[in-house]
Amino acid sequence: MTSQSFPPTKFQSFEEKSDPSQVAPRLAALRKAMKAAGIDHFLVPRADAHRGESVPASEARLAYLTGFTGSAGLAVVGLDKAHLFVDSRYTLQAPAQTDTALVEVHEVASFAIDARALVAKGDVVAYDPWLHTPTEIRDLAEKLKGHAKLVARDNLVDEVWDNRPAPPVSAIEILGDNRAGRSATDKITEIQKTLADDGADAVVLTLPESICWLLNIRGRDVPNTPFVLGFAVVPKKGEPTLFLDAAKITDELENALAGVATIAAAKKLPKALEKLGKSEKTVMLDPASAPAAVAELLIEAGASLVEKRDPVLLPKSRKNEAELAGMREAHQLDGVALAKFLSWFDAEAPSGELTEIAIVTALEAFRREEESCVDASFDTISGAGPNGAIVHYRVSEKTDRRLNAGELMLVDSGAQYLSGTTDITRTLFTGSATPEQKDRYTRVLKGMIAVSMARFPKGTSGAQIDVLARQFLWADGVTYSHGTGHGVGAYLGVHEGPIGISSRYTLPLEEGNVLSNEPGFYKAGEYGIRIENLLVVKQSSFPGYLEFETLTRAPIDVRLIDMALLTEAERQWLNAFHGEVWNDIGPRLSGAAKDWLHAATAMI
Amino acid sequence: MTSQSFPPTKFQSFEEKSDPSQVAPRLAALRKAMKAAGIDHFLVPRADAHRGESVPASEARLAYLTGFTGSAGLAVVGLDKAHLFVDSRYTLQAPAQTDTALVEVHEVASFAIDARALVAKGDVVAYDPWLHTPTEIRDLAEKLKGHAKLVARDNLVDEVWDNRPAPPVSAIEILGDNRAGRSATDKITEIQKTLADDGADAVVLTLPESICWLLNIRGRDVPNTPFVLGFAVVPKKGEPTLFLDAAKITDELENALAGVATIAAAKKLPKALEKLGKSEKTVMLDPASAPAAVAELLIEAGASLVEKRDPVLLPKSRKNEAELAGMREAHQLDGVALAKFLSWFDAEAPSGELTEIAIVTALEAFRREEESCVDASFDTISGAGPNGAIVHYRVSEKTDRRLNAGELMLVDSGAQYLSGTTDITRTLFTGSATPEQKDRYTRVLKGMIAVSMARFPKGTSGAQIDVLARQFLWADGVTYSHGTGHGVGAYLGVHEGPIGISSRYTLPLEEGNVLSNEPGFYKAGEYGIRIENLLVVKQSSFPGYLEFETLTRAPIDVRLIDMALLTEAERQWLNAFHGEVWNDIGPRLSGAAKDWLHAATAMI
Repeated sequence: MTSQSFPPTKFQSFEEKSDPSQVAPRLAALRKAMKAAGIDHFLVPRADAHRGESVPASEARLAYLTGFTGSAGLAVVGLDKAHLFVDSRYTLQAPAQTDTALVEVHEVASFAIDARALVAKGDVVAYDPWLHTPTEIRDLAEKLKGHAKLVARDNLVDEVWDNRPAPPVSAIEILGDNRAGRSATDKITEIQKTLADDGADAVVLTLPESICWLLNIRGRDVPNTPFVLGFAVVPKKGEPTLFLDAAKITDELENALAGVATIAAAKKLPKALEKLGKSEKTVMLDPASAPAAVAELLIEAGASLVEKRDPVLLPKSRKNEAELAGMREAHQLDGVALAKFLSWFDAEAPSGELTEIAIVTALEAFRREEESCVDASFDTISGAGPNGAIVHYRVSEKTDRRLNAGELMLVDSGAQYLSGTTDITRTLFTGSATPEQKDRYTRVLKGMIAVSMARFPKGTSGAQIDVLARQFLWADGVTYSHGTGHGVGAYLGVHEGPIGISSRYTLPLEEGNVLSNEPGFYKAGEYGIRIENLLVVKQSSFPGYLEFETLTRAPIDVRLIDMALLTEAERQWLNAFHGEVWNDIGPRLSGAAKDWLHAATAMI
Repeated sequence: MTSQSFPPTKFQSFEEKSDPSQVAPRLAALRKAMKAAGIDHFLVPRADAHRGESVPASEARLAYLTGFTGSAGLAVVGLDKAHLFVDSRYTLQAPAQTDTALVEVHEVASFAIDARALVAKGDVVAYDPWLHTPTEIRDLAEKLKGHAKLVARDNLVDEVWDNRPAPPVSAIEILGDNRAGRSATDKITEIQKTLADDGADAVVLTLPESICWLLNIRGRDVPNTPFVLGFAVVPKKGEPTLFLDAAKITDELENALAGVATIAAAKKLPKALEKLGKSEKTVMLDPASAPAAVAELLIEAGASLVEKRDPVLLPKSRKNEAELAGMREAHQLDGVALAKFLSWFDAEAPSGELTEIAIVTALEAFRREEESCVDASFDTISGAGPNGAIVHYRVSEKTDRRLNAGELMLVDSGAQYLSGTTDITRTLFTGSATPEQKDRYTRVLKGMIAVSMARFPKGTSGAQIDVLARQFLWADGVTYSHGTGHGVGAYLGVHEGPIGISSRYTLPLEEGNVLSNEPGFYKAGEYGIRIENLLVVKQSSFPGYLEFETLTRAPIDVRLIDMALLTEAERQWLNAFHGEVWNDIGPRLSGAAKDWLHAATAMI
């Protein structure tokens, strides 16, 4: 089957979405509004109030103003100069998307900026308090202290935004206990116990992942992640209130959540916060994710704050048996799509005609054959040859590249199934690989296997596990600059805190955590290698110890392995893994894909 | 040679130093003084003002009052009840040394105590501000807030201490640049640069290790570590002032330090701090190690504080080439003593007559044959059979035990040579080891070798390296409860921060760091295993990477290895290590010890 024969239904777009010629009039309009308001600099972050990786079109202020569509960034717009701060993922993309005559692009993570150097003494710097966290604003205030005036105000971009898209109003799906594994009431009781322990009368939840998990709801408000955007206030006793765009509130939804949560229009949130303040409540919020506006409204009205990590994050990270059963099912479905895709790739690649976009399209179409596949869990990273070395590469029509013989092909992708979320990376190739490529591939694989085989005492953090994945690359004086793994949601965000595998994740891993395991190696201008499976933390038969179960069900290409580097234990792990893939996925396949999988999972 | 033939010169004492019958009259005298002063509880910590592991007899207040001689602990003496808090190392020793009818012993680390539960509402709790850090006092004040009154005052134990020993007045040794590798002036300039960067006008140094390193001096004020006890004030510009017991100040010393530091009597320190305060200076101190009295005197007089880690600690941890040359020489000298000791042990152990004390005495005597051996660097841990499983075991005449055939023998020891400091653990045996003992020994060894062979990028911390040492034990569901390694001083403290190898050491390792590498395994009631070498961090030939050089020069017993568990790379490492031991130590030996070393370092 060639990519041309696929139906046009695909999730990922390859257009260059931005039009740099729009930057000039939009900046001019914003500056006019700034002058009228007596503001010298206005902050335009990529984030919305819910801090998600995707924002709805109605919240894509940074893209509207600067053309830059990356998933993180901050513009500081002065009356004369405009600066755009992006991290290293977007060093190439940002200048290509914006008008660089008007916007100076800096490779500096948003809140590491030298704010003092950007603004003149006595300037007024304004921000929308719904788009920044208390932590960010405190940091900025500290930097500008005694130098410039920092003021919160209504968003000036919104005032000048022509034809602003309407906010998303997607249908809301209620998960039954069979899928969620626990009733919302049970989860609410757990969070209320945390509130009591921490001396708080209520918590304001602002992360959609927390609200969706707590109330067992899902939606389609943003791409890639089944989020319902909204806010929730959970009191120490009684029902939480869920604040939603009024257009989403239906009798059906109210009935479905009856006895669990009260629903209110989102515009009533400020009044509700004010009420908490006036009754002098102690209110918990997460200063690293809640909007500063929430904190400000509470404090102004008289509330005391308890600043703590969102109390839903840790319970949510411990997936229960029903969630894990769903995740296992999702990985079986994904395994079927992957086997079809990989066998298709092996047949098509030697033609020399495959492009990065054709590969994305084919993979998505294979996944789409499964009805319960709702969406991709993120835009597929499809990097042929040297593009594979760009860690967060996202192919567009402009960058699309043919895969030549002798090149490696890095494909990092995932899907949202109704049963769960997947994320998998495989490094493919066509023609023959060089000894160096095989050496690097094998060291990456050895690290991936070392993590997969790890057994560790309770209390061990992902920061401790990380080195197991790196040791074989380190031994040859190389490494990779990203983390080894991130948390993954159960039919929720494909990136989910607060646990992970890298030096920044110091919380202990716990039973039920789902994590990616994805070491890599990147040779700039030549090739990229990454091998990624998802893992679940489970009890070991050794008392007090934990170990990993692999969720992913797609083979790892053994033709790229330098067998001399593999130990007997590693070979055995790989054979056992391939045995599981074949046992689970083989029966779900037929024809060429089945034959291909049989060969791909043969013992080595 | 049997242990009886050794001269009586030995460093370690095996007496039970305490007399529980003294506790009653001493407590009574202290309580009388407390009543007269209107104090309900008085804190008596083990620490002196310099936070060292050893304190001079004149500062051993906790031992004087309670009989407990451990290296950490805190007594909270009330008018009716007295509590002694010790950590898990001293669970057995503390009750054996004190009068348990009068002193209740708790296994709780000193400042994790539940202070609020110990004292009645409205009580007055007093402490000597020279014996506690600002961090400790803040923590205690927080715990007692609104409950009891916390007051600083002169030490009440000192008021009632009969026949208190005089403070130590040891000779002061000046290290030439050939040994220190850098002039004191050069070091002072580096610290002064740090002060300028941090906006401080001066720093008060209170740790003897910092002062000794900075001024290139050593002394004999405490056992095991060549410390000069004193304080120093280093101004941003100009000469530091070194505050010493007046009895130590000689013309010779003043001449030796002329142009480097001014010397003043220790009793003038409060006045000097007051002067800094009165001139409104900004003064740096380390809140985790400086006495609270220093902070209080400065603040009361009007100084501003900059609370930072002691600025000497990091530069001191990066040993220079002269220091490393000294450390290598010290390890050669120690290797000669170890070879003699180990060959003696192998000859004597089968008699079944060797005791833990005989082993300590023999080892110290062999070290003592080298003239430049100044002292042991800590009391030797000599644990036969089940005593080896007590991680911080210290043999006394009461606990001394014969080594029986089939038992493992854990010997952890070290020495101070004029050239440097050593620390080594070897697990010995007599008779035949069980398969389980060999399995555990081999897993410990594999971990020790994995750290020794590690290569890692700059920026990697000891917290990251730690897991390499544990992975093989974890794989079998076991671990050890101590860190993998600690920093080691160059002719200074055998335990030295701020770097190390365990999850608490998150600072990057740097070239010149000297660390221990000592994984272990302990089976309570049966045996203990630990294998320890010292390592230096050095540049790798791979750019941007670091690796370790092994300093230790004593063989590892290969008869305890389960060869089936050893990889080819591990076997090669061990052969290369033994080759270095033989090449360096063989030529310095003769006779039976030489023959023994030749056999012990043979290729496997």
